[in-house]
Amino acid sequence: MEFWYTEEWTNKVRFSVKVEKQLFSKKSDFQQVDVFKSEELGTFLTLDGLMMVNEKDEFIYHDCIVHTPMCVNPAIKKVLVIGGGDGGTVRELTRYPQIEKIDMVEIDELVVRASQEYLPITASKLEDERVNLYFEDGVAWVANATSGTYDLIIVDSTDPIGPGEGLFTTEFYENCYRILSKDGILVNQNESPYFAHNAHEMKRAHEKIHRIFPISKVYQAHIPTYPSGHWLFGFASKTLDPLLDAKVDKWQALGLKTKYYNTDLHMGSFMLPTYVKEMLEDAKTIK
Amino acid sequence: MEFWYTEEWTNKVRFSVKVEKQLFSKKSDFQQVDVFKSEELGTFLTLDGLMMVNEKDEFIYHDCIVHTPMCVNPAIKKVLVIGGGDGGTVRELTRYPQIEKIDMVEIDELVVRASQEYLPITASKLEDERVNLYFEDGVAWVANATSGTYDLIIVDSTDPIGPGEGLFTTEFYENCYRILSKDGILVNQNESPYFAHNAHEMKRAHEKIHRIFPISKVYQAHIPTYPSGHWLFGFASKTLDPLLDAKVDKWQALGLKTKYYNTDLHMGSFMLPTYVKEMLEDAKTIK
Repeated sequence: MEFWYTEEWTNKVRFSVKVEKQLFSKKSDFQQVDVFKSEELGTFLTLDGLMMVNEKDEFIYHDCIVHTPMCVNPAIKKVLVIGGGDGGTVRELTRYPQIEKIDMVEIDELVVRASQEYLPITASKLEDERVNLYFEDGVAWVANATSGTYDLIIVDSTDPIGPGEGLFTTEFYENCYRILSKDGILVNQNESPYFAHNAHEMKRAHEKIHRIFPISKVYQAHIPTYPSGHWLFGFASKTLDPLLDAKVDKWQALGLKTKYYNTDLHMGSFMLPTYVKEMLEDAKTIK
Repeated sequence: MEFWYTEEWTNKVRFSVKVEKQLFSKKSDFQQVDVFKSEELGTFLTLDGLMMVNEKDEFIYHDCIVHTPMCVNPAIKKVLVIGGGDGGTVRELTRYPQIEKIDMVEIDELVVRASQEYLPITASKLEDERVNLYFEDGVAWVANATSGTYDLIIVDSTDPIGPGEGLFTTEFYENCYRILSKDGILVNQNESPYFAHNAHEMKRAHEKIHRIFPISKVYQAHIPTYPSGHWLFGFASKTLDPLLDAKVDKWQALGLKTKYYNTDLHMGSFMLPTYVKEMLEDAKTIK
């Protein structure tokens, strides 16, 4: 008898992974949390039936969401992570000695606990002394935070359905702008351009961020276990351009070993296919 | 009752597409040829159960395999296409008025006939007067062709199993080198780095080409319907570097509209993830 985890990338396209066994399954106040063991992807965690993180390719997502902004401003000291319950984003941040404080605001404690139990690969650095873990709503957190508090905000969210929904609103992005310091950067997971429903959310998020931040660009990565494998991130900032202001020499001098990210790829990741560029241009005309 | 086309990306990962109906199914002397109609991907063609081309994203593959070399040398006049039975590569080539001659050598006539019947989107330019269609073995073709005949060879092959196998050998690449003109370019579909069996073939092909051509690089594209969505192409040449020698202004002056390719993306596509760069470096040490 064979067990397969199957994810509906759309209602007409499915991605399936052979599973050795289910390690964990529980419904939290916010969502269904499952952990599976597989030969091809190692251990992986899903939320409401969507792949969030797996041992095989988590490095791709976490490299992109952390090292891209850190290369643009290696002097970043105070970071806010919204979501990111598996801990992979925090793990990459803790590799920078110059970072003094990481506030991680994850609404669902169960995601963190399941990751600490089954995914030490991502969760192992949540105990770093610079990390403050809050099990609270990110929307309320940014509404209540003091202006100018953070140098970098990373929105490491689920899709804009369920608990992630409020993290894709104008009010949320406006508060992010307000609580960022003068050279502040906002990075968000920004969905995919390929399947229509992902592309719709991508455009909505980009349109909102674009209206609030003086600099707002999109970069891409190859993440095979997310729908279509073509995933986007938003880079927005008050003053820093992700290409013109990238501190390539400084970042390289840090000597961090990375399996996906490198400074050439940093530049390349902002070079988007024409159809994606056109979608982003269209987005700016949304009323 | 629902019908699904399911492809084994590995024996532990599957990609499935909901199918409205099967339009064509026949075994040729070389392989099983099937055509399906689906809502998400439109009409698509498979060979031996592997997705070759579909209406939704064929533009990505064909843009990358044609416009990348054409931007590096827009003066290309004589082109050899090996494989490419669906006609998409030829279609993109025929958009360049300066190209005088396109020899297309496809071993399996059935692939061309099925494409002409069901995939006019890719096959429609096979009747261009500059196109010479030969239903012959590409391996024998390059062995018999006169030295210095072609400015560009595009290897638009299946995977190196079945009829495509001979197109991944040292002897084949050596003949490609011989029959290329002095600034000649060889472009080949070069598999994927993500799943182990694809990565193995990628490394083998790169190692062989690297030993024969003075310039040998690899570039990437987001092709969601190929295994992992992370697909690679090889760019090899006698004299031209795909970055340093790209004729960006000249290519832009041609005024070709493309849905995926653009000259910024051209540069970005050669910026590879660290793990892929390391695989390619490893490949050079294969005995």
